[in-house]
Amino acid sequence: MRHSLSPLLTDFYQLTMMQAYHDSDMHEEAVFELFFRKLPPERDYLVACGLEQVLEYLENLRFSEDDIDFLRRDGRFHERFLNTLVDFRFTGDVHAMPEGTIFFPDEPVIRITAPLAQAQLVETRIINILMFQTMIASKAARIKQVMPDKILVDYGLRRAHGAEAGIMAARASYVAGFNGTATVLAGKLFDIPIFGTMAHSFIQAHDSEHDAFLHFGMSHPQNTILLLDTYDTEKGAMKVIEMAEEFKKHNITVRGVRLDSGDMIELSRRVRKILDDGGMKDTLIFASGNLDEYSLESFHRQNAPVDGFGIGTKMTTSADVPYFDCAYKMVEYKGLGRRKFSKGKSTWPGRKQVFRHFRNDGIMSDDSLALENEQLSGTPLLHQHMRSGSRIEPPSGLAGTREYFLHQLTTLPSFDREKIYAVKPSPALQTFADSVTERMQRNNR
Amino acid sequence: MRHSLSPLLTDFYQLTMMQAYHDSDMHEEAVFELFFRKLPPERDYLVACGLEQVLEYLENLRFSEDDIDFLRRDGRFHERFLNTLVDFRFTGDVHAMPEGTIFFPDEPVIRITAPLAQAQLVETRIINILMFQTMIASKAARIKQVMPDKILVDYGLRRAHGAEAGIMAARASYVAGFNGTATVLAGKLFDIPIFGTMAHSFIQAHDSEHDAFLHFGMSHPQNTILLLDTYDTEKGAMKVIEMAEEFKKHNITVRGVRLDSGDMIELSRRVRKILDDGGMKDTLIFASGNLDEYSLESFHRQNAPVDGFGIGTKMTTSADVPYFDCAYKMVEYKGLGRRKFSKGKSTWPGRKQVFRHFRNDGIMSDDSLALENEQLSGTPLLHQHMRSGSRIEPPSGLAGTREYFLHQLTTLPSFDREKIYAVKPSPALQTFADSVTERMQRNNR
Repeated sequence: MRHSLSPLLTDFYQLTMMQAYHDSDMHEEAVFELFFRKLPPERDYLVACGLEQVLEYLENLRFSEDDIDFLRRDGRFHERFLNTLVDFRFTGDVHAMPEGTIFFPDEPVIRITAPLAQAQLVETRIINILMFQTMIASKAARIKQVMPDKILVDYGLRRAHGAEAGIMAARASYVAGFNGTATVLAGKLFDIPIFGTMAHSFIQAHDSEHDAFLHFGMSHPQNTILLLDTYDTEKGAMKVIEMAEEFKKHNITVRGVRLDSGDMIELSRRVRKILDDGGMKDTLIFASGNLDEYSLESFHRQNAPVDGFGIGTKMTTSADVPYFDCAYKMVEYKGLGRRKFSKGKSTWPGRKQVFRHFRNDGIMSDDSLALENEQLSGTPLLHQHMRSGSRIEPPSGLAGTREYFLHQLTTLPSFDREKIYAVKPSPALQTFADSVTERMQRNNR
Repeated sequence: MRHSLSPLLTDFYQLTMMQAYHDSDMHEEAVFELFFRKLPPERDYLVACGLEQVLEYLENLRFSEDDIDFLRRDGRFHERFLNTLVDFRFTGDVHAMPEGTIFFPDEPVIRITAPLAQAQLVETRIINILMFQTMIASKAARIKQVMPDKILVDYGLRRAHGAEAGIMAARASYVAGFNGTATVLAGKLFDIPIFGTMAHSFIQAHDSEHDAFLHFGMSHPQNTILLLDTYDTEKGAMKVIEMAEEFKKHNITVRGVRLDSGDMIELSRRVRKILDDGGMKDTLIFASGNLDEYSLESFHRQNAPVDGFGIGTKMTTSADVPYFDCAYKMVEYKGLGRRKFSKGKSTWPGRKQVFRHFRNDGIMSDDSLALENEQLSGTPLLHQHMRSGSRIEPPSGLAGTREYFLHQLTTLPSFDREKIYAVKPSPALQTFADSVTERMQRNNR
C-alpha cells in the first residue's frame, strides 16, 4: 500500500501553508492534539485504534522525485520550497493512548510534537487513519458487548469503502474482540484468524444442492460449513441429515451450517432441532445477513441457538454513525498555548494528559483532563510512542492489544440515556485556557 | 497501491470454493452480473463509477509466491490446488455500462464471463470497488444538481474511510461534475484539478490574523484565499479590506475568502457587502463545513452569494446512505441460466442488456431489461470492455467521462416521491426466467 504512505495523501492547503511557513521562517516546535467532539446518541464511548498505521506512516514519510516534480508542474510552489522537500522527514514525537484504550470526547487520543510544517502536513492522513479505525473498533465493541461469548467474524470487505477500509475494519474489529475475519489479506497482514463458509453461487453452479454439499465436503473434509438457505433453509438442514451416511463414507465432518435469510431466530431453533434429532449435536449454527448490535439484541433476548455471527456491511461502514466529528488542533506553538474559542467549537490549549479513576469495584468512574505536567491521581492514558521520528518500541502483534481492550471492557460502567461519562478539566487546565484566550484576544483586537 | 490488486483481497470462501471447483473439475464458463437492489428513499438514480479500477484489478491479478505460501501455511488447501494458483490469470470478458452512466435498480452494471473459479474469486473486490465509487458519484451528482453552476470541490479525505476511499471519492465526485479536489494524490493520479485555501491552525500559529493573512499572501501572491472565521468572520472580512494597500504593495491578489462556520448564508451576504463596498468585487466567496445537498438547497433558495463550496464528510462517506444493497449473482453456468428465486431476493437469469428509451424532448422515459441477444429498440447501455483478460481500449482520461455524465444529467426526468423510473423486463426475459425457475426447482425436489 504505497499510496497509504505518500506525503501527497493530504489536503493541498497543507502544502501551501508549508511553503508560507518556509517563507516566514516559522520552523519552531508545534503541538497538535486529535480529539473527538460530542458523541451522537448511538455511542457512549470510543475505542482508540489505528496508532500502528500512524506510526508506520510517520516513519516512512518521504517525497519522491516524482512527487516533487508533480508539485513543480502544478506551478503554485517555488524552487526554494520544493528543494526542502527532498530531505523532508518527520522528526517529531508522538504521545498517544495505546490502541484498544476506551476514551471519551475532548480527550486527546494522540499528540504530535514537531516543527510546525511537519506537524501540519500530517494532519489529514492522521485523522483519516484514526477516525476510521476508532469508529470501527467502537462499533464492533458494541456488538461484542451484546454477544460476548459467541464467535464474531468480520464479513465486511465487499461493502467497505475501498480496499484499505476493508482491511482496516478487519483489524479494528479484531482489536474490539471479534474472533476473526473473512478477508484473507487482513489475516495475512495482521495475523488475524480467517473464517469462511460457501456462497449461494456455489450451490447454484451445481445441478442440485445435494451435489454442491457433497463436492464441498469432499474438497474440505475437515472444514465443511454448509449454506442452507439457497432454496429452503429447513429442507437444506434435512438434506444435511439425509446425507449423513454419504458424509461418513468420505470422512467428511460437517462442522457447521449457515443461515443467511428469513426469520433467522425462528429458523435457528428449527434447524437446531433438525440437527439434534439427526444426531448432529456438535454441528455449529452460523448466521449472517444485515446484522448489527440492534438485531443481535433480539437474538440474545430470544436466546436463539446460534453459535457464531458473520457481521458485514453495518459494522464495516459503521452504518448508523458513518463519521465522527473529530479534530486535530494546534494546542501550542513557540512555547505558547493556542486554542479556538469560538462558541461550540472551543478547544483546550496546551499539552494534555488524561487521568482515569476507578471505583472500588474496579469500574471506571471518571477522567480528569489535565496539563501534561500535572501530577494528578489516577491512571495516565497517554504514553510516548515515537521520539525524534523513531518508534520507541517495535510494533507488537494484535493479540495483546485485543486482550488489553477486553480487560477494559470489563471495567466499563453501564450507560443510560441521561448519563454521560464525566471528563472534567483540572483547575490548572481551566486557568491556563483562560490565560490563552485572554492573550489571543488581546492580539486580535 | 499493491494491496488493491492482491488476489487475497477477497473473502476466504472464494478460495475454498475455488478448491472445490478444482476438485470437481468445474471449469466451464460462468456468467455473473452485478446489480443494485431497491433504492432507499434518499436516492432516485445511480451513477456507474469504478469500472477503470475493476479492469486494472482484473488485468493485474496474480498470486505471488508469498501469497501461495501464506495459503499453504493456513493448512486448509492442498498442493494440487495451490499449484494451479502459480499461473492463475483472469482470462474472461467484461461487459459493463461506461463510467458516468445513469442507471437504476435491477440493471446489470457489469457482467463477468469467465471460467467459474475466476469469476467467483473476483466477486468481493468487484463489489468493493463498484459499490463505493457508484455510491459517491450518485451522492455527488445530487449536489451537482442543486448547484450546477457553482465551483464544487471535494474536501473529504480526512473523514473518508481510509486512503483508497479518499482518493476514489475525489475521482467519483469529479466524474459526477465536481470541479476538483483538495486531495493532492488524487489530483496526481487522475489529473483532477486541485484546490486549497488555508486552515485555522495557520492563523493560530501567528500572533495575529493580520500577520497570517500577510504571510500567506506573500508566499502565494497569485493564489491567496483567506480563511475568515478563526476569530470573527465579519471582522476578518474588514481586515482584508483594511489590508488592501499592504496587499497591493506586495503584488498580492486576494482571489477569494472562505467561510467555515456560523450562519453562512447570512454571513455570505454581509461579507459580500463588505468586500463590494471595499472595492473587491472580484474576490470570490467560498463556503465549507458540514455541507451536503440538503444544506445547499437552503443556499440556493436564499440565493446566497457564494461562488464555491468545499464538500467533505457527508459526500465522502455518503452519510445519509453509507452503503447500498447490491449483489454479484451467477446468471449462467455451463450454458444454463441460473437465478435465485427466494422471496424478495429473486434475480433475473441470463446475460442481459439494458435498452434505454427517450421522449421526444430528449428526456429519458424508461428502460427495458432484456436478454443480451434480443434486438430491441432503444440505446443499449452495456458495452464490452475486456476480451479474454485484455482491455479492448486503453484507459482514457476522466474528462470525457465527466462530459458524458453531465450530458446525461440534462436528460434526467424529474422524480417525485411516488414515481420511480420504470425498468421493465422484456417478455422474452420473463419467459426465460420462468423456465429457469422450473428447471432448478425440479432438480431440487
